[in-house]
Amino acid sequence: MELPQEISKRELALLRSLSTRGGRRHTGFCRCEGVRAVGELLTRAPGAVRFVAGTRRGFDALDFVPEKARSISEERLAELSGTVSCQGIVAVAETPADAEGEVEGPFILALDQLNDPGNFGTIARTFRAVGGRELWYTKGSVDPWGDKAVRSGLGAQFSLRLRRFDDLARLAEQAAASGFGKVFITDPHGGESCFTLPGLFDRSVIVIGGEANGVTGHPRNSVSVTIPMPGNYESLNAAQAATVLLFEHVRRTTTT
Amino acid sequence: MELPQEISKRELALLRSLSTRGGRRHTGFCRCEGVRAVGELLTRAPGAVRFVAGTRRGFDALDFVPEKARSISEERLAELSGTVSCQGIVAVAETPADAEGEVEGPFILALDQLNDPGNFGTIARTFRAVGGRELWYTKGSVDPWGDKAVRSGLGAQFSLRLRRFDDLARLAEQAAASGFGKVFITDPHGGESCFTLPGLFDRSVIVIGGEANGVTGHPRNSVSVTIPMPGNYESLNAAQAATVLLFEHVRRTTTT
Repeated sequence: MELPQEISKRELALLRSLSTRGGRRHTGFCRCEGVRAVGELLTRAPGAVRFVAGTRRGFDALDFVPEKARSISEERLAELSGTVSCQGIVAVAETPADAEGEVEGPFILALDQLNDPGNFGTIARTFRAVGGRELWYTKGSVDPWGDKAVRSGLGAQFSLRLRRFDDLARLAEQAAASGFGKVFITDPHGGESCFTLPGLFDRSVIVIGGEANGVTGHPRNSVSVTIPMPGNYESLNAAQAATVLLFEHVRRTTTT
Repeated sequence: MELPQEISKRELALLRSLSTRGGRRHTGFCRCEGVRAVGELLTRAPGAVRFVAGTRRGFDALDFVPEKARSISEERLAELSGTVSCQGIVAVAETPADAEGEVEGPFILALDQLNDPGNFGTIARTFRAVGGRELWYTKGSVDPWGDKAVRSGLGAQFSLRLRRFDDLARLAEQAAASGFGKVFITDPHGGESCFTLPGLFDRSVIVIGGEANGVTGHPRNSVSVTIPMPGNYESLNAAQAATVLLFEHVRRTTTT
C-alpha cells in the first residue's frame, strides 16, 4: 500500500507532549496505541481522531490507511511510544470533556482511587462490553486518558460517559441528586453476597476500591456488598472484582 | 531492623539466570518480585523458597526479615529486576514439577495458547481465589513461571496443580481419561449462555482461548459456551472471560 504524507513537526511535537498528564490536559488530546485499540477508535469514535501516525508495518497490520494518516519512521515512533511494542501505529484523539446532564442508566460504576492504569482500562472495556454508560471516578485515580489506560481499554473510554469527583462523598451526592441514591460498596471483608442482594443494579452506584487500600470511606446510606471467595485467598484484583459485578448484572437481565 | 548477610556471587548468578525461560527450565527455579507476591509466597509455599534478596527499603516494606534472607544493593537489584519497580524485594523459588496423578475436582481450567503473562497470572490468582486446583495449558502459552506471570498471579501458581500439553486435543484426552470428559469451549460468537448451561462445572474442562486467536480447535464432543455481552463490543479480555466463568461456579455453589 502507498504510505501517506509524512508527519509534520507540529504533529510530532503534539504526539510527544501527550506522554504526560499535564500535556494531555493542556492540549485536550490523548494517544491511542496499537492495532486493536486504533481500529476500535476509528470504528467507534472516528470524529475524535486528529491523525493516525504509523509505520509501514503499522498500516500493514491495520490493513488499511485511514483518513488523516501520517507516515512516521520506526525510530521516531520508538522514541515517542509509551509501550515497548506499539505495533507501529498510534492515533492522536481529542479527549472528551467530562460528562454532564442527565445520568444514563441503569447504574453508575464508580472507581475510588483506582491507581493502576491497566485495571482502569480493563474495567472501562468490560463496562462497555456489558452496555454500561456512566463511569465515574475519584481524584487519586489514574488518568483514564494515559497511554496504558487507553491501550488496556481499547479506547472504550471514548464510548463511555466519564466523570471525575474530588472524593467519594461528593460523587455519591451527585448521584443521589440525579436519582441514583443507592450506593453499594464492594468489600472483601463483609456484606451481602453480590449474587443474592436485591436491587443491586436498580438506579444505583457500584463502588470499586483501589488496589492498595480499597474504598476510601462509606458514604451515608451505603451498603456493603461482597463477592464470595471459597479459596480464602487475598482479595481479588480490582478489575476482576468489577468484572464479577458487571456480569452479575448481565446474568440478572438475561436470565429473568 | 538489622540487614541479613549479603547475597553470594553464586546466588546472584542464579537470580540473573532466571530472567529467561531457558534459565528457569535449566535451573528449576523462578523469581517472585514485589512485596505482596513475596509475602504470599512466604505464607503459602515457604518450602519452595530458596532465598529472598532485598534492599533495606524492601525488607521495611515487607515488615520483617524472613528466613534465608539476603541483602542486595538497590543498584544490583535494579539491574536484575524484570520490572521497573520490584519494590526492593525478590524471592528465588523452586518451580514445582508438572502435576501428576489423580485429578482434583470439581473442574479443570484450561488455557489454550494464552500468551499474555499478565493474563496468565491474573487467571491463576482468580482461580486460586475461587478454590480451583487444576490449571492446565497448552504449548504456545506464556511461561507460567516468568517474572510478570508470577507477579500478576501473586504466586498463586505455587498453590495450583499446573500441567502443560502439546495441544488441546491431547489435553482433552488426558482429562477424559481422568474422568473429566465434558469439554466446554468459551466462544464469543455462539453457544449456550454460561449463566444457564447445565453441568458446566461437573467434572468438566473449561477452555479459555488466547488473546489473539481464541481457541485453537474444538476437541471431539466439546460444547461451545458463550458469555452474553449486551454491549455488542469486542470480545472480552481473556482474564475477564475466565473470571466470569469462575464466579459463575461460585454463584452456583453458594446460592443453591
